[in-house]
Amino acid sequence: MGSPVAASPAPREHFTFFHGLRVRWAEVDPQAIVFNPNYFVYADVAFTEYMRAIGFAYPAALEAAGTDLFAVSAGANFRASALYDDELDIGVRAGRLGRSSIRFDVNVYRGPQLLVDIALTYVNASRTSKRSEPLPPELTARILAFETTAPSTGT
Amino acid sequence: MGSPVAASPAPREHFTFFHGLRVRWAEVDPQAIVFNPNYFVYADVAFTEYMRAIGFAYPAALEAAGTDLFAVSAGANFRASALYDDELDIGVRAGRLGRSSIRFDVNVYRGPQLLVDIALTYVNASRTSKRSEPLPPELTARILAFETTAPSTGT
Amino acid sequence: MGSPVAASPAPREHFTFFHGLRVRWAEVDPQAIVFNPNYFVYADVAFTEYMRAIGFAYPAALEAAGTDLFAVSAGANFRASALYDDELDIGVRAGRLGRSSIRFDVNVYRGPQLLVDIALTYVNASRTSKRSEPLPPELTARILAFETTAPSTGT
Amino acid sequence: MGSPVAASPAPREHFTFFHGLRVRWAEVDPQAIVFNPNYFVYADVAFTEYMRAIGFAYPAALEAAGTDLFAVSAGANFRASALYDDELDIGVRAGRLGRSSIRFDVNVYRGPQLLVDIALTYVNASRTSKRSEPLPPELTARILAFETTAPSTGT
Repeated sequence: MGSPVAASPAPREHFTFFHGLRVRWAEVDPQAIVFNPNYFVYADVAFTEYMRAIGFAYPAALEAAGTDLFAVSAGANFRASALYDDELDIGVRAGRLGRSSIRFDVNVYRGPQLLVDIALTYVNASRTSKRSEPLPPELTARILAFETTAPSTGT
Repeated sequence: MGSPVAASPAPREHFTFFHGLRVRWAEVDPQAIVFNPNYFVYADVAFTEYMRAIGFAYPAALEAAGTDLFAVSAGANFRASALYDDELDIGVRAGRLGRSSIRFDVNVYRGPQLLVDIALTYVNASRTSKRSEPLPPELTARILAFETTAPSTGT
Repeated sequence: MGSPVAASPAPREHFTFFHGLRVRWAEVDPQAIVFNPNYFVYADVAFTEYMRAIGFAYPAALEAAGTDLFAVSAGANFRASALYDDELDIGVRAGRLGRSSIRFDVNVYRGPQLLVDIALTYVNASRTSKRSEPLPPELTARILAFETTAPSTGT
Repeated sequence: MGSPVAASPAPREHFTFFHGLRVRWAEVDPQAIVFNPNYFVYADVAFTEYMRAIGFAYPAALEAAGTDLFAVSAGANFRASALYDDELDIGVRAGRLGRSSIRFDVNVYRGPQLLVDIALTYVNASRTSKRSEPLPPELTARILAFETTAPSTGT
């Protein structure tokens, strides 16, 4: 699958989609900063909203084809810390489209500052055999229609 | 900092330390598998126990020197899923020792099966200036005395 | 302190304040319903927004007086379950004002349906001696000015 | 259902079962104490271990009868705070057995000190109709055989 994170974070202008959220008390640790695993929770929340924004009925639209997106890797670079009650903007974009895999790049900003960049790689696979299947054409089409900066392609 | 995950997971026999835990209901998602970000929580729990096992009083021993270990990256490869009530063995080892940085490799096993491999990279830095500082010699010494397979070294 | 929950839930028209949120994947359990402890997390999030709405700078405004609100009890009745991706309206109101204690009533709705009613009781107490102190007059005044249905009073 | 918490906590000698756990970094908030909703997570973990200890295959043994235990209320009194890395003993006992309902009392101790007492009330009900059903005789029998201080009975 290669490295789970991009060599360098996607620049802000490559993101068409942002989801805003506010840091909860429950997510902050005794150092008064967001406990690192919660950035992956934020990425998951924002991923859901991205699917809604592009109009792809996830996961229902995959169920019909008997597949689901399975996370195969996740990676994050922590550049600065979010604090309690911070308002964050979570950028999500499809960074790379493969035949059966897709990498989402997720950047966490506080105002202009990039705090964390995350890469999430999923493979579309059969729910039963777990064998990889091509990405559904509807998903690919919706992503390409939505993103103003095209994802890279390739295996 | 380079890639946040190792190119391939450390083999089981390289781990001197394992921490056992059982999957909680709270950690399992509607697919009946552990929600991915929780593997990073497990890694954090096991990291704490590793520090206890090697006899390094973390974080107190760093406070004296005015530094702390700051996570700079985290990466995981998800190979198979843990289920509710599974008993897991979390292997932790220092995989690479740099001048000021240290990479911990964390492998999550269910019996003989590797489910997830995680790499966590920390930098020792001043709590005030955030400038990187050499790893404390006591930490390095305790790790080298503890690990039966030596970590790699270098920047 | 008496019973941690009100005998019967506050009716919807007694709530001046509502905070909307959407159920996250991370909060849903293998039964595909919100894991119960997360309703208390929702209550905490909505409590924070209530304080913002009434214009009380919590906790900063208490720090000046050397006190803080300490939760002494929490109780919930679970009437129906929230599901993944549900949009919830979390009503918060001050249900009872005592000399040093305050009970917040938190109702969790999905559309018109009451799913969970929660009562959270806090005592204002010294951060050092932990002895109870009268509620700050500014907090009481802001609540009484904000709530259209007055809280009950008494010890 | 009445009040979700007992009027006063069960005394320690009434508990036959204890489950030990250690407070995780992820569970501690910026005040350096356990975030309150996590005590309900601890109660859930300990409840699972109680079922294992009495030899009741939960939830499989209920599935055969087409029922499940549904939480109808939860309440907690917070008496003192657990801190990061604390070792806690979580006592669980069946405090009251009704026809279809059961109340578990959960006391959280740090050494001899009672930190939190929790009451969890469940109703056994049909998975489909959600109508209440009598508690399974096997569960009642195992509890009565296990507990050295008998639970109270009644509706």
